[in-house]
Amino acid sequence: MNNMSSLSQSLLHFQERNNQQLGDWIDRQPFADQTLIKAMRHGTLLGGKRARPFLTYVTGMMLGAQQEDLDTPAAAVECIHAYSLIHDDLPAMDDDALRRGQPTCHIAFDEANAILAGDALQALAFEILASGPLSNDGNSQRIAMVQELARASGAAGMCMGQALDLDAEGKHVGLEQLETIHRHKTGALIRCAIRLGALAAGEKGIAVLPQLDHYADAIGLAFQVQDDILDVISDTETLGKPQGSDIELDKSTYPALLGLDGAKAKAQQLYQQALHALDAIPYNTVQLEVFARYVIERNN
Amino acid sequence: MNNMSSLSQSLLHFQERNNQQLGDWIDRQPFADQTLIKAMRHGTLLGGKRARPFLTYVTGMMLGAQQEDLDTPAAAVECIHAYSLIHDDLPAMDDDALRRGQPTCHIAFDEANAILAGDALQALAFEILASGPLSNDGNSQRIAMVQELARASGAAGMCMGQALDLDAEGKHVGLEQLETIHRHKTGALIRCAIRLGALAAGEKGIAVLPQLDHYADAIGLAFQVQDDILDVISDTETLGKPQGSDIELDKSTYPALLGLDGAKAKAQQLYQQALHALDAIPYNTVQLEVFARYVIERNN
Repeated sequence: MNNMSSLSQSLLHFQERNNQQLGDWIDRQPFADQTLIKAMRHGTLLGGKRARPFLTYVTGMMLGAQQEDLDTPAAAVECIHAYSLIHDDLPAMDDDALRRGQPTCHIAFDEANAILAGDALQALAFEILASGPLSNDGNSQRIAMVQELARASGAAGMCMGQALDLDAEGKHVGLEQLETIHRHKTGALIRCAIRLGALAAGEKGIAVLPQLDHYADAIGLAFQVQDDILDVISDTETLGKPQGSDIELDKSTYPALLGLDGAKAKAQQLYQQALHALDAIPYNTVQLEVFARYVIERNN
Repeated sequence: MNNMSSLSQSLLHFQERNNQQLGDWIDRQPFADQTLIKAMRHGTLLGGKRARPFLTYVTGMMLGAQQEDLDTPAAAVECIHAYSLIHDDLPAMDDDALRRGQPTCHIAFDEANAILAGDALQALAFEILASGPLSNDGNSQRIAMVQELARASGAAGMCMGQALDLDAEGKHVGLEQLETIHRHKTGALIRCAIRLGALAAGEKGIAVLPQLDHYADAIGLAFQVQDDILDVISDTETLGKPQGSDIELDKSTYPALLGLDGAKAKAQQLYQQALHALDAIPYNTVQLEVFARYVIERNN
C-alpha cells in the first residue's frame, strides 16, 4: 500500500471518529427538534474532509498522545471551522449557495438560523475544550487550548482574515497582502489544529511547537494556493462548490498574481518548506509528510 | 444618600471600570485600523448599562473576591452580551437600526463586518477568560468559567433563546413558552454573570450557587417583563431604540398576554421572589436587593 492510499484510510478513520464525536456533542444539546439544532447538524456533519481534526490527531499521536486524548481538541477545532464556513457562506459575506455538494446552511434553513448555528457552534467549541474528556494534566492543558483556539479564531486570526479578504474584493492586492489574508483566514486555524495536538501531548509537544509552526504555516498557505488553482482548473461537481467563484467575486488569487504555472511552482515551494520543517522534528513525521503532499495534489 | 442613588454611583463605577477593560482588550488586537476592529469597538463601547458586569462584580465582592479578580469574568460576559446585540440587530434577525441611541453595527459599518465583529467578540470573551488576570486557584476556576459561559451563551442558552424567539414571531405563544424563551434569551447570561462572580470568590461562592440561581432567574425574567412594559409605555428617545418594536414584529410579550397591569404585577412578584432568594444568603446582599428593585423600576 503506498503512502497516499494509506493517507486516505487514515483521513477516513479520523473523519469518522470526528463525525461521531461532533454528532454526540450536538445530540447532548437540548431542544433537539428546533431548527437551530438541525442547522448546526447540517453545517457540521454533511461532508468535509476533516483536515484540521486529522492534523490534531496525527500531530498528537506522533508525539505520544493517546487517540482518546485528541478527541476533545479535534472536535473543538472542527466546530470553529464549521461555524466559519456557515458564516462565510452568508449573503452578506461570500453569498454561496453550495458547499460540499449541499445547499449552504442559510439556503437549507434561513439566514437567522444560519447566523445562530454559527454562533452556537463557536460556543460549543469552547464548551468541548472546557468539558470534553482529556487525561493528564487536565486544567492547564485545557486553558492553553482555549487560549490557542480563541486567538486563532478571533480578531487576531481567522475573523480578521475573512475581514481582510472581504476588504480586498475588487481591489488590487499584492502578493504580500494576499499572504497576510490567507495566513489569517485559513492559516491561523490550521496552525491551531496542529498546536492543539502538540499541547495534548504535553512537554514533548511543547518542545517542538516552533518546528510545527513552520510546517503549519507552509501547508496552510499551500492549502490556499491549491484552492485557488482548483477554482481555475477544476469543475463544480468535483469541488462541491461553484467553480470560478473567485473570478466572479473579483478576488485576488495566486493564479491571478503569479499565473497558473507560477501558482503551481509556489505550491511546490511551500511543500518543500513543509518537508524542511519536518526534518527538524525527531519523531516519525511520515503522516505529516504525506499530508503535505496531499495538500498540493488534491483535486477537491 | 438613599439606596437608589448609591446604586447609580455603583453602576457608574463598574461601568467605567468595565469599559476601560474592554477598551484595553480590543486595543491589544492587531490591525487596529481595520473596519472589523472599529465595528467591535462600536458594538462594545458605545453606551450600555453594563448590568451583567455589575452583577459579576457585586456578587463576587459580596462573597469576598477582590475587585481585580472580577475584571476578567466581567469583561468576558460583556463581550458575549455585546456580540449577541450586534447579531440580534442584523436584518435577518430583529432588523434594528438603532441601539443605545446609536446606529446599530451593521448600519454604522456593514453586515459582513457586523457578523464578523460579533464572531470576534465571542472569541475574545473566551480569550479573556483563558488569559486575563485572575488570582487564586487560577486554572480550575478559569475552566469552570469557560464551561459556564459557553453553556450559557450557546445552543442550550442564549442562542437557543434567540432562535425560539424568532420562531415564535407571528405565532400565539403562551405564558410558559414565553418564559422558556426569556429564560434562555436573556436569563441564561444574567445567571451566568452572577455565577462567574461567585466562582471567582471560590468555595464561599460555590456554596451559595443554588440561592444565587434563584435570584438570577427571578431578576432575569423581571428584566424582560420590564423591557416589554417599557416597549409599550416609554418613548424611543428614552429607550435609545424604537418604542413599539415588539408590536411591529408581532412578538408575544407579557403586556400582550397579561395586560399592562398584569405585567406590572408579574414584575412585582418576581421582585419578591428575588428578595426571598437573597434571604437565604448569609452575606450583605444589599446591592443585589437594590439592583432587583432597579430592574423593575428603570425607565430605559
